[in-house]
This record gives sequence, structure tokens and C-alpha cells, in this order.
Amino acid sequence: MAKYAGLSRRRFLAGAVGAGGLGVLVACGNQVGQMQNAPYATNAERNAGSGTVPAAVQASAATPAASGTAMTGMNDMPGTTTAPASASTAANATATPAKDWQAMSQMHEAGVKTFLAQPQTLRGGQRMEYTMQDGVKVFNLTAKPMQWEVTPGQIVEAYAYNGVVPGPQIRVMEGDSVRVILKNELDEATAIHYHGLVIPNAMDGVPFITQPPVNPGESFTYEFTARNPGSHMYHSHMNSALQVTKGLLGAFIIEPKDRSAYPAFDQEYTMILNDGPLGFTLNGKGFPSTEAVTVKQGTRLLIRYMNEGLMIHPMHLHGMPMTIIGQDGYLNTPYKCDTVNIAPGQRIEAIVECTEVGAWAWHCHILSHAEGEMGMFGMVTALIVQ
Amino acid sequence: MAKYAGLSRRRFLAGAVGAGGLGVLVACGNQVGQMQNAPYATNAERNAGSGTVPAAVQASAATPAASGTAMTGMNDMPGTTTAPASASTAANATATPAKDWQAMSQMHEAGVKTFLAQPQTLRGGQRMEYTMQDGVKVFNLTAKPMQWEVTPGQIVEAYAYNGVVPGPQIRVMEGDSVRVILKNELDEATAIHYHGLVIPNAMDGVPFITQPPVNPGESFTYEFTARNPGSHMYHSHMNSALQVTKGLLGAFIIEPKDRSAYPAFDQEYTMILNDGPLGFTLNGKGFPSTEAVTVKQGTRLLIRYMNEGLMIHPMHLHGMPMTIIGQDGYLNTPYKCDTVNIAPGQRIEAIVECTEVGAWAWHCHILSHAEGEMGMFGMVTALIVQ
Amino acid sequence: MAKYAGLSRRRFLAGAVGAGGLGVLVACGNQVGQMQNAPYATNAERNAGSGTVPAAVQASAATPAASGTAMTGMNDMPGTTTAPASASTAANATATPAKDWQAMSQMHEAGVKTFLAQPQTLRGGQRMEYTMQDGVKVFNLTAKPMQWEVTPGQIVEAYAYNGVVPGPQIRVMEGDSVRVILKNELDEATAIHYHGLVIPNAMDGVPFITQPPVNPGESFTYEFTARNPGSHMYHSHMNSALQVTKGLLGAFIIEPKDRSAYPAFDQEYTMILNDGPLGFTLNGKGFPSTEAVTVKQGTRLLIRYMNEGLMIHPMHLHGMPMTIIGQDGYLNTPYKCDTVNIAPGQRIEAIVECTEVGAWAWHCHILSHAEGEMGMFGMVTALIVQ
Repeated sequence: MAKYAGLSRRRFLAGAVGAGGLGVLVACGNQVGQMQNAPYATNAERNAGSGTVPAAVQASAATPAASGTAMTGMNDMPGTTTAPASASTAANATATPAKDWQAMSQMHEAGVKTFLAQPQTLRGGQRMEYTMQDGVKVFNLTAKPMQWEVTPGQIVEAYAYNGVVPGPQIRVMEGDSVRVILKNELDEATAIHYHGLVIPNAMDGVPFITQPPVNPGESFTYEFTARNPGSHMYHSHMNSALQVTKGLLGAFIIEPKDRSAYPAFDQEYTMILNDGPLGFTLNGKGFPSTEAVTVKQGTRLLIRYMNEGLMIHPMHLHGMPMTIIGQDGYLNTPYKCDTVNIAPGQRIEAIVECTEVGAWAWHCHILSHAEGEMGMFGMVTALIVQ
Repeated sequence: MAKYAGLSRRRFLAGAVGAGGLGVLVACGNQVGQMQNAPYATNAERNAGSGTVPAAVQASAATPAASGTAMTGMNDMPGTTTAPASASTAANATATPAKDWQAMSQMHEAGVKTFLAQPQTLRGGQRMEYTMQDGVKVFNLTAKPMQWEVTPGQIVEAYAYNGVVPGPQIRVMEGDSVRVILKNELDEATAIHYHGLVIPNAMDGVPFITQPPVNPGESFTYEFTARNPGSHMYHSHMNSALQVTKGLLGAFIIEPKDRSAYPAFDQEYTMILNDGPLGFTLNGKGFPSTEAVTVKQGTRLLIRYMNEGLMIHPMHLHGMPMTIIGQDGYLNTPYKCDTVNIAPGQRIEAIVECTEVGAWAWHCHILSHAEGEMGMFGMVTALIVQ
Repeated sequence: MAKYAGLSRRRFLAGAVGAGGLGVLVACGNQVGQMQNAPYATNAERNAGSGTVPAAVQASAATPAASGTAMTGMNDMPGTTTAPASASTAANATATPAKDWQAMSQMHEAGVKTFLAQPQTLRGGQRMEYTMQDGVKVFNLTAKPMQWEVTPGQIVEAYAYNGVVPGPQIRVMEGDSVRVILKNELDEATAIHYHGLVIPNAMDGVPFITQPPVNPGESFTYEFTARNPGSHMYHSHMNSALQVTKGLLGAFIIEPKDRSAYPAFDQEYTMILNDGPLGFTLNGKGFPSTEAVTVKQGTRLLIRYMNEGLMIHPMHLHGMPMTIIGQDGYLNTPYKCDTVNIAPGQRIEAIVECTEVGAWAWHCHILSHAEGEMGMFGMVTALIVQ
């Protein structure tokens, strides 16, 4: 595998950064966490927000003007044409460099190193066990608040099915009889919608339209036949802008009985995109806690993209194209691209012929969902072809 | 039709909610209106905005901490990890539940009941009468400010053609000679662009490029042949970010002379998406005033989606897939999906085979355009298959 | 060419506007610049922002209430239902018109006139010269901060390759050996990613994953074979949300050796979309400095759309449809439309049969990226068919 050798080299902060640099680093960590935690912030807001960070930096730094300047680059983003001028004035006044780029690079590298080491962390989306009862596959889901680690040390209040974000993956065969028993241990009512499934109206999970809400402490049983194969989802359909973005979601995959119409693949990966209280996440984690996907050269990798967030996420894979084969469980005329736009609620199926060896960045190409001054965060992972 | 029987049952607020609960309800109503009215608010802003609601609630509530907590759930959304902690501290201090979920559910149900009863309200987008003059179909449009009811009791200043939002639907046959006489009774200049129509440049409606603006009190006559069939639009092309989102828009449908290349359908529905000063709207109305679409089982329903807003709206239909047959009046290779992303300016034509009986939710899957803590609002309606 | 004759007529402010009118005009100019400069502002923020403009207007105007009202139309946008009432009260109190629509129109016309005169300005994206060294095409790129003129008189700090935004266009043949030598004269580290190119992992430009970052004052040499034809891009992959939106980007076009599978065209135009510190731009310029595209009737025009911004931009061409032929360098099943949604990172290829004579507006249909109260700005240009 062709990987930059420098990755294994420890890089130290330039001595010149001094006490201010340490202050900067502490603040940077906070800032990164803050970014991951505030995905809805527009750049203007982030601008305003990050404007408070330098203040903290200034307070803790030996060379306030320089550190402040170093951290305010983000401030330059939306139309503050006067800012650079005043910043450089400040820099000149204290005879310090305009930007602490070494600190920026060091934070950037630290993130990449953590990612490549793939931190141990509880991951969601694992395939769920079921029990068979009279020919019915029975799945039990409990919705409950929890503290969820999005990135190392960044713990956020989430709502989770069975203690993980995303909830466990439900996977059945076309034609299966399915029962899902939902237990609500939240402090608000909820319900599950089976997004994409063709099922009886009474099982559709829309409170006050197809069922009463499932109140705190109550349970509700959904029962239906898995009719239409595809990459579907299950998620809350009550107070959903909050409950889904907080974690009440999971993949619901129905395998087709007859695979003959489907393109062949060797390995698959489900990637659930989300944005909200947990930040910008891939399968419930932000970079550097996102999961790297490793395959052998020549693998045909099926990717099941699912967007559970409130924003579009155009996912870009470096190194080799994706062939888009279907949406929402229905095959389309295949077409190739390297950046596929997934809108909220959509599931896009793509196949990658993993011909190129290396560690290929794989990220949302709304760059502000993936990288800040202090390095990458949020919706970034890698496809590693060995 | 399978419909949740509980819908006809009156549900009362739990007595435990008490005086605080009533205060909450009043505040909730305001909050919902506020949400519908401020679609551009990012979650961070909504967060800040809803932060002011609890204050009002606290002022009017007997148990301020509890009610305040009940209303601040939205506050948890973007990255306020410390908020839940302080909220629960406050809750513990007063020994009240962390959330007034009963009030939330009650508001939610009230909205659904209003929707299912389909409130009497002035609706726009009705097909427009024309007069024939020497073989020309003549349509008269007057642009004028008005007070428009978006949801029951929520009156907003709109700009309207002929007193309705959307403006009346213009529908002609391919090859027709068309005359549109615009009278401007606004307090600013305007002009009409025929979005999607292939017409002479002088009729294209772009002020200072193809025509002088139509000043307040003036009229302008557009005349052209309807050449290219399809689901098109007419709307203001001056100060358009404001004028179009305030209501100066309508469908302009040109029926093809030769239908042989077009898929058959039994019934059709035009759904114009908008966001802006009127909130998140479907055909000028926000939930629960949105129009439910009722069909008999087996109907092939043609949907003409049109986006006149400033944001994408991925429309999700529960229960059965849509077959996308064309965009902007041009047929494409059909493909199926359940969530179709419509970008501003686009018109997407879809056919739904209405095979599944029930009341199927149909909404924008940017969940924050469709549901808040107090229930559904904005871009939500239902397809009712009988 | 059918062009509105009124364009050549000088229009004066109505005398009634008086001293207040002049104050308004000064303020308007600022406001337009501000809008172009703050693309990330949501409408709510713009609302707040534009709210400060009327204050300035009031200070300088003889009839403060009226002028203030005139400029606050934008304020009405998101959900300030009470504003119109209070505004009209103010207007009544001073017996002045509610809006200074003449001033609005005059600003609007001034912009169009400037655009149609096509102001002399340094433009980026010109095809880059290379040197041949041992059969390798060598391109030199220097990244450096600079002052970039986005619209007449609006100078913004940009980061530029070789002093232009977008950077010069790199264009090679499929199979060519290519060397790009990057010199970093920024005050922060950088690196170049070849977006869409299938190249060795070590040349992919992702700091700390495929290479060390290129520090200030350092150089880095990229070398690879141009394998996959198409409309690709090169841009920074470090601190990219800032560096790319500030201008470190360019087109990287690989011409196919075998054109037989490609639709024929007569003329081509590359349009790079961006949003960020430079405002909403087409090829680094905001309206009225954007470049008009002029063709003779009958021309088949190939458009290479490329989105380097952080937002989607649904580009709408008036007058005649576009045929979408491919994405990211891969041909698709052609389909026609008049509004094509380009997501960040995507490149869309379209062919327009320029059958209709006239000056056709061509703009992002997120109307708030293209027009404000004072006229058009940002992502607007025209296709002029002679």
C-alpha cells in the first residue's frame, strides 16, 4: 500500500510557538469539537462562533495578538475584507507571524494519525440478531437517551436504539415476515417509520395518522411482510427533526430473492450520513473516529449511502469512480461519477471497482462539513485498497 | 381505508400539566407559527430563537423551570452538550418531569386533526379562465400585495397574482397563441419570466435586458406561441428573491399535441414548493392547511413538482414508489424512487401507481421543514388512497 | 439580436427622491457589495444585516422614515409579519411612499448596463502555457494571497494560483505525462488535490495521508499520467473550506484521445461556480463583472459546469434547453432540462443548441444567489445568441 511514510514520524510543535502555542492547542481542540457539534452553523455563524475562540486563546496565550490572528482565519471567510488588514496591523504591531500555521498543521496531523490508528470506540450499525417465532423474524428495539462518543473525548447526548448510533442494522429477505417491538424509554413520545418499505398503512409509523404515539414507558409492535428489496431505513417519525438527528435511525435492508438483475459485488459497506446534534457524522462518528473501509485490490465494493440528516451531502471518493446502480431500492441506468449528491431521505447504491492501491480520502465535498483550520473533522473517512 | 381509529377520539391534556401547561400551549402556538414563518432560520438560529420562547413560557407558567425545560428541547439540537445537564439540574431542583411530552403530543395531534378535517381556506393554483380574442388565449394577471392565510390564523403579507398564492394555473395547448396582460399594483417594479418556455427574447421578462420593468400602476403585455410542452412556471424576474418567495409565481402548463410518447395517467396534481416569507409551503399553504390529495386505489397519479423556493426540497412519499418520468418538460429514462430531490427552478414529473390503501404522509425529508417539537408544520401533506 | 432598446437610455432618479434618495443610493451600493461578500448569510442573517443598512440610510436621509422603509423590504422576508404594519404606519405618518422603487430600479439598471458593457477586468481560468521537458508537460503554479476584484471596485483578499481566480486552466491529452510544480507563497501550508483524476495515491494531494503538507516557502512536484478524460479540477486539499473558497482552484481538463463516443460541439465554455469569501461567483467574478458568453445562432455550445463552492447551485439557462451529457468525466444517458443542479465537487457537461436569438439570462436559480432589492448580483451572466 502506498502510504505517506511521514505518517509514522512524530512531528513536534516548533519551539517558536511557545506558551502561546500551547494555549492555542487547547483552544483548538475545543474549537474542533465545537465545529463538529454545530453543523448547522452557517459560515457566517461559524465565523461569529470562532470569533469567540480567539478571545479565549488570547486570554491564555503569551502572545495574544499573534495567536488571536492565527485562529481568526475562519473569520476571514464571509466578506470581512477589512479583517485581514486589521489583523496584519496587529501582527505588525507585535512583530509576530500572521498565522501560526505550524500549530494548524500539527492539529491537522494529529487528527490524521488518530484516524489511521482507528481509535477503539463503540460503533453502531452492526447487523442485529433476531429470534424466530412461528415463522416471524422478531427484532427488539429500545429507544433511550444516552451519552454517545462522536470523536475521542467528545461525548454528546444522543437518542439511541439499543444503545448505539446508528441503531443496529435490520436485514431480512424479501418475503420475510417481520416483527419489530419498540420500547420507548425516552422522556417523549416516539414512533418508527419504515422509510422506503411498502407496508400496510397501519404499520407506517406516523403518529395520529396511522397509530397513536408510543408514549414514554410504552411499547408498540410493528408487523409486516418485507415486500420490496433495497437499502431502506427505519427511524423516528415523531419530533423527527430532533429525534432522527439525535440518533433514532438505522438501516433496514431487504435482500432480493432473485439477484439476477443486480450487479455482482464482493463486499459491501453501509454509510449513513447525518448532521445535527451529533455533528457531521458517518455512521454516528465524526472524523477521526470514522471507520476506514479496507478492501483488497480488485474488490467490487457495494456502497449503500443513506442520508438521515437535514442537508445534502455530495460524497466524493478519491482515486477511482463509483458506478451508481440504484436509488431507494430501485435499479437505475448505471452511470459513473466521483461525487454523488445524496439528499435527505435518499439511499443511493454505488459499486466501486477497487483497482487503485492506496489510502483514498472519502468525504462530503461540502468542504465545511469535512475540514476546518485545525484539520479534518466530520464527514471524512478513507477507502484503503491494499 | 385503514386509518388510525384514535383520530376521532378527543384527547385531553393530563391534569398534571396544570397552569403551566396552559401557558405552554399558548407559547407553543406562537412557536409553531414562528417556525413556519421563519424557514430560513438555520437550526442554530432556530435554537437561539426558540430559546426566547421558553422565557415567555417561564413568565406565564406556574412551574417555570419545568415548562422552560419542556420547551427547550430544540435548544439541544446543535451542540449544546451542556444544556441537557443544566436542564436536568433545574428539573431536579423543582422535582418536575424533564419534558412536558403530553403537551408536545397534544399539539401534534391537534395539528393532524385540523389537517384531516381539511380547513376551509382560500387556495391558489386553480386553473385560470381565459378569453379568446382573434385566436389568442388572453390571460389577465394583477400583481398586488395582500394578506394571505398560510395556516389557520397565520396571516402573512404576500404578493399575489389575482389574489391567490400560487397564482392561478395557466394551461394551454402546444401551438396556442397566448397573451398575458400583467397589471402591476405593487409598490415596486416587476416583470414576468416564463420559466422553461422557449419564447422570443423580448417576451422573456428580464428587466433592462429584454424589457423595461413594469412600474407600479403600469401594465405590460406578453405575447408568444406556446412551443414546448411541459410543466413550466411563470414568476417575477425582478427583486425575485423577495417577490417570488412572497408569492408572485404560478404553474404554466403546456399540454403536448401528441401524447403518444407520454406515459398514461388518470389524475394529476401540481405541487409547488416554496420557502420564504410565507414559511415552508406546498401550494402556498403550510401544514395543517395543506391540501390532502385523495385518489381511488389503482389510480395512476401524475405529480408535477415545481420548486419556486430558495432551497432544495427532497419530497418523500410514504407507502409506494414514484416513477420519475421527466424534468422541465422533457422526458427522461424513467426511474423509481421514494424520495425525489427538487432543486430551485426545477420541475419534476412523477407517476405514482396508487396501489396501497391508506393515508400516506407526503413531505419534504429535510425534517426541519416538516416537523418541530410541537408537531408537523410546513411541507407536509398526505396522499389518501381509498 | 433582439435587445431592449431602453438599455441605452439614461434614467434619472425621480426628483421626488431628493436628498434622501442620494443617501439611499450610497447605502445601496454598500448593501450590494455586502450581499456579494456575504454569501453564507441565511436570509434571516441577511435580514439582520440589511437591517443595519436602513439605519445608515436614515442617518443620511432627509426623510428618514420613508427611506428606512424603502430599504427594509428585505427585512420583511423571513416572518416579520408585524413589520409591514409598522412600516406602513411610519409611511403614513410622514406621507411618503412606502418604497423608493425608483431607486431600486435605477440600481438594477445600472448593474445591467455595467454588465452589458462587459467591464475590463483581470479574468482567471485562461488556458495555461506549459513547457515540455523530456516528453513531460510541465505546469508551474504559485499559490499566493492577493487582492482580487470581484465586481467593479469590490476588492477582496483572495488566495490565487498564478495571480488569478480561478487558477489557470490546465488542459492536456489523455495519456500525457504531466508534472505540476507547486510553490507555496501563502502564510499557511497547502497541497493540491487533482479532483476526479485517477492517479497514483502518492500524487493525490491529501496532507499527512498521501504527502506532507507543502509549508510556506516550500515547493512540491506532482507527476502523473493523465488517464481518464473529462472535466476535472485541481484545488487545495488543506484548510480547504477556506483555501478553495478563497480561490485556490482551477479546471483540469483531459481531452479524450478518441472522441467518437462524445457528442459533437462547436464552442465550449467552462463555468466554475463558487461561494465564500469572494461572494457568489462565476469564474471568480460576481455580476456585473461576470463574463457574457457570445455565440452565433446554430452553435452547439459545450458547457463544463464545475462547483467549487459549499452550496448547491441549480443553474438555469433562459431561452432554450440544455442536454446533460455527462458528469465527472463520464458520459451518461443524455437528458434535457433547463435547470441543472450542480452539487459541490461535481462537474456536469451540457450541450446547448443555440437556436434562439437574443440575450438570455443565465443564473443560479437560488434567487438569493442572484438578485437582491438593488438588482442582480453574484451568479448571473448571459448567453448572447447572435
